[in-house]
Amino acid sequence: MLSIDINCDMGESFGNWKMGNDEALMPFISSANIACGFHAGDSVVMQQTVRLALRHGVAIGAHPGFPDLQGFGRRTMQLSPREVFSMVLYQIGALQAIARSEGGQVRHVKPHGALYNAAARDRSLADAIAHAVLCVDADLILFGLSGSESIAAAKAIGLRTCSEVFADRTYQDDGSLTPRSHANALIENDADALLQVLQMVEKQTVTSVFGKTVPLSAETICLHGDGVHAASFAETIFKKFQEKGILIKCP
Amino acid sequence: MLSIDINCDMGESFGNWKMGNDEALMPFISSANIACGFHAGDSVVMQQTVRLALRHGVAIGAHPGFPDLQGFGRRTMQLSPREVFSMVLYQIGALQAIARSEGGQVRHVKPHGALYNAAARDRSLADAIAHAVLCVDADLILFGLSGSESIAAAKAIGLRTCSEVFADRTYQDDGSLTPRSHANALIENDADALLQVLQMVEKQTVTSVFGKTVPLSAETICLHGDGVHAASFAETIFKKFQEKGILIKCP
Amino acid sequence: MLSIDINCDMGESFGNWKMGNDEALMPFISSANIACGFHAGDSVVMQQTVRLALRHGVAIGAHPGFPDLQGFGRRTMQLSPREVFSMVLYQIGALQAIARSEGGQVRHVKPHGALYNAAARDRSLADAIAHAVLCVDADLILFGLSGSESIAAAKAIGLRTCSEVFADRTYQDDGSLTPRSHANALIENDADALLQVLQMVEKQTVTSVFGKTVPLSAETICLHGDGVHAASFAETIFKKFQEKGILIKCP
Amino acid sequence: MLSIDINCDMGESFGNWKMGNDEALMPFISSANIACGFHAGDSVVMQQTVRLALRHGVAIGAHPGFPDLQGFGRRTMQLSPREVFSMVLYQIGALQAIARSEGGQVRHVKPHGALYNAAARDRSLADAIAHAVLCVDADLILFGLSGSESIAAAKAIGLRTCSEVFADRTYQDDGSLTPRSHANALIENDADALLQVLQMVEKQTVTSVFGKTVPLSAETICLHGDGVHAASFAETIFKKFQEKGILIKCP
Repeated sequence: MLSIDINCDMGESFGNWKMGNDEALMPFISSANIACGFHAGDSVVMQQTVRLALRHGVAIGAHPGFPDLQGFGRRTMQLSPREVFSMVLYQIGALQAIARSEGGQVRHVKPHGALYNAAARDRSLADAIAHAVLCVDADLILFGLSGSESIAAAKAIGLRTCSEVFADRTYQDDGSLTPRSHANALIENDADALLQVLQMVEKQTVTSVFGKTVPLSAETICLHGDGVHAASFAETIFKKFQEKGILIKCP
Repeated sequence: MLSIDINCDMGESFGNWKMGNDEALMPFISSANIACGFHAGDSVVMQQTVRLALRHGVAIGAHPGFPDLQGFGRRTMQLSPREVFSMVLYQIGALQAIARSEGGQVRHVKPHGALYNAAARDRSLADAIAHAVLCVDADLILFGLSGSESIAAAKAIGLRTCSEVFADRTYQDDGSLTPRSHANALIENDADALLQVLQMVEKQTVTSVFGKTVPLSAETICLHGDGVHAASFAETIFKKFQEKGILIKCP
Repeated sequence: MLSIDINCDMGESFGNWKMGNDEALMPFISSANIACGFHAGDSVVMQQTVRLALRHGVAIGAHPGFPDLQGFGRRTMQLSPREVFSMVLYQIGALQAIARSEGGQVRHVKPHGALYNAAARDRSLADAIAHAVLCVDADLILFGLSGSESIAAAKAIGLRTCSEVFADRTYQDDGSLTPRSHANALIENDADALLQVLQMVEKQTVTSVFGKTVPLSAETICLHGDGVHAASFAETIFKKFQEKGILIKCP
Repeated sequence: MLSIDINCDMGESFGNWKMGNDEALMPFISSANIACGFHAGDSVVMQQTVRLALRHGVAIGAHPGFPDLQGFGRRTMQLSPREVFSMVLYQIGALQAIARSEGGQVRHVKPHGALYNAAARDRSLADAIAHAVLCVDADLILFGLSGSESIAAAKAIGLRTCSEVFADRTYQDDGSLTPRSHANALIENDADALLQVLQMVEKQTVTSVFGKTVPLSAETICLHGDGVHAASFAETIFKKFQEKGILIKCP
């Protein structure tokens, strides 16, 4: 039986500021990437989000990011691999303690935003992250962009990985994402996004913007939690998978 | 054979700013309270400090504080017990992951500065901290002011505790510390401090500023790391204990 | 002709996090208290808020707070008067530069949240804030709780002041606000709030929760921007004043 | 009569953490670049540093940096020109208010660390900074790397500039600094540094690492405040200039 993971960034509120719609989305995902206080989230928000994930049987993941609340971890910062290594350890550990206090445990790690993008391209950062994950708990699964340096670095040291694909992003002939600066970077139409997702899950391929069929590893689908109709799109995908007999489960 | 723990706050550098003299003091202590990034320390400093402690066979402790770098965690912040609970979990977990990455483990928890003082007096904060420690790892030992609410709260839920006394602070008739605002709050003379320490360790009493012999529990001695002659005083105490056949070891 | 100021806290978004409904409220107020980056706001948000205020002809005020984003400046921090003095200077200056870049200028200063409350009771903090305001620009107007130490301290050094009253808070016999911990602290009914506001503006008195008529100075009314119907209540007050021929203008 | 400015980064302590040796260096410089709380400094430190500069008759400059205390503003952050514009306004304004409270005023602006380097190369950032300076006060002088985009952008909008050269850095044939990654980037010998400085001041040329005589504009010399012998080198330069009859004064 075919199975797939659906992941979403969660716990992105901070102090009095609310963000996202975690309650509405949680029923339709299998893995929650929980912000760890550096780019979003704080210890109270983390605790609430862990509790929500546990209530829905959703796997808990650490979502470490650059230390930049104002920029929401989306502004690249030139940290050394050594700094990234310690910073990732710190954030995973913080979430582990909070998860444990609620009777849960951290199952996976997915870097956030600019850190995710930097690690996808830069092997030294990818190595730093992979080593940090391995040091904390060798059973943790690293989520990374399908075909990226992140995944390669993790595999190289025997870490379990989960290759991520995007429902609403278009792809190039080499399997890379179309840069957001391009006009056709996003799939705005839900029906098209759904078709792309099904192709990726069922055939492990994607059709590039130039019409080429490109093989890729699709083990988890990233849903965005911040759009207006994020929850309804999540529900659509969820139901389509159920209809097709595709099992939605964390890796 | 009589034994005693000697603890000291460590890892209080931050980014490019150096503080303390960890290398010089580490040989003379048995427990290091490592700042966890909220009032001092950062993930890189934490990692260096864990490594240094392991090299000297010194027990690693988490030293959680208020989120106030500018105030070094010495300015009281009115956090709710719920906020303190999550915040302490977070900081302990962060250090645990870093300790694990170096092959070590966190053995104890000692709140820092204004949080330490608030928890000594306020049972609801003391309860929050004790529960956080218990949730993370029931084998952790909570360090707290001898005779304080911190110790009482920890004992009440079955947590192991370690009662802390001060070499260079004077005591009142009720066993409380003389407030720092009083002229005679500090023992400036090393010889007097040494005598007080020996009395506390050997007799489990202290002589108050009014001359009264007051019973108290002395399981760990706090050394300050930031004075000019901090290391030489540490060495003096260390040697005196060796001379007297008192074993210096973590609880 | 009777006149009154209506003020509201503005610019409380931070980075990607949105808060409040500044666009909807701005048409109905005469003074905007703009968060300065310590408890809320950041330099980009400040700039947008200044621009919005200028577009509506609303007076620009600095809204300095404790350095506590997570707590939104609502958690008391024990800062020394010296620290408060520098911190208030810093925040006012930051907003002045941003206001100047948009062709505007800072007209008033209103401390935020826990700092506002602390300064209302504690004369040494009130003095620190008043001196900071005076040092930056002797023409600035300090907004403070009517009858508080804040106002007294400012008057004592010749600073212009503006006494603030609340539409939706009840008062005690001595003219102080009913603490929020009391059941009857808030006026939930808009009609009652409106009656209280009119009495305060027209008669410079308030009826306490015990039925006593208490004199108070009402120079500016604080509207809360974060409730669901904040904008509609603002509009109601605004129109009632217009109807009564009461001029709405900044001091 | 020949004159030159000597500038140095100052006020880089933060909270309880001390850095630099401002008291020892202040007598030998004419312009102090004061950290504004984003990469170093806090409002209390800024106030102390302003007071120290005023006591020595040293010109006060704002030293805005990236919002990165842990990285000391030395880690590049990818901020948009719009973010940089607001951030620079904010920091200059904060220092202006503090300077005013001490009876002084801000005379110049010099970006710090990674922001300085980014603005030297990237015209859009250079423009953002130059506009921010102009908006705050058209009489402010922008300090920037001699021959850089920073200087060009400032000149283009009619801002006064001051071209900076380094005593202890070597130069390439095109007048750019030898990258720090190169073995010969630094002049370790004081006598050589002194010779280079004199050549730059007297002849407005520098001899590149390849032996070529390169023209450059030398209006201010940057001294580093953090070396062990920073103060003694500052004194050496200071005395040599006096001996040569070169006037040391801010621009």
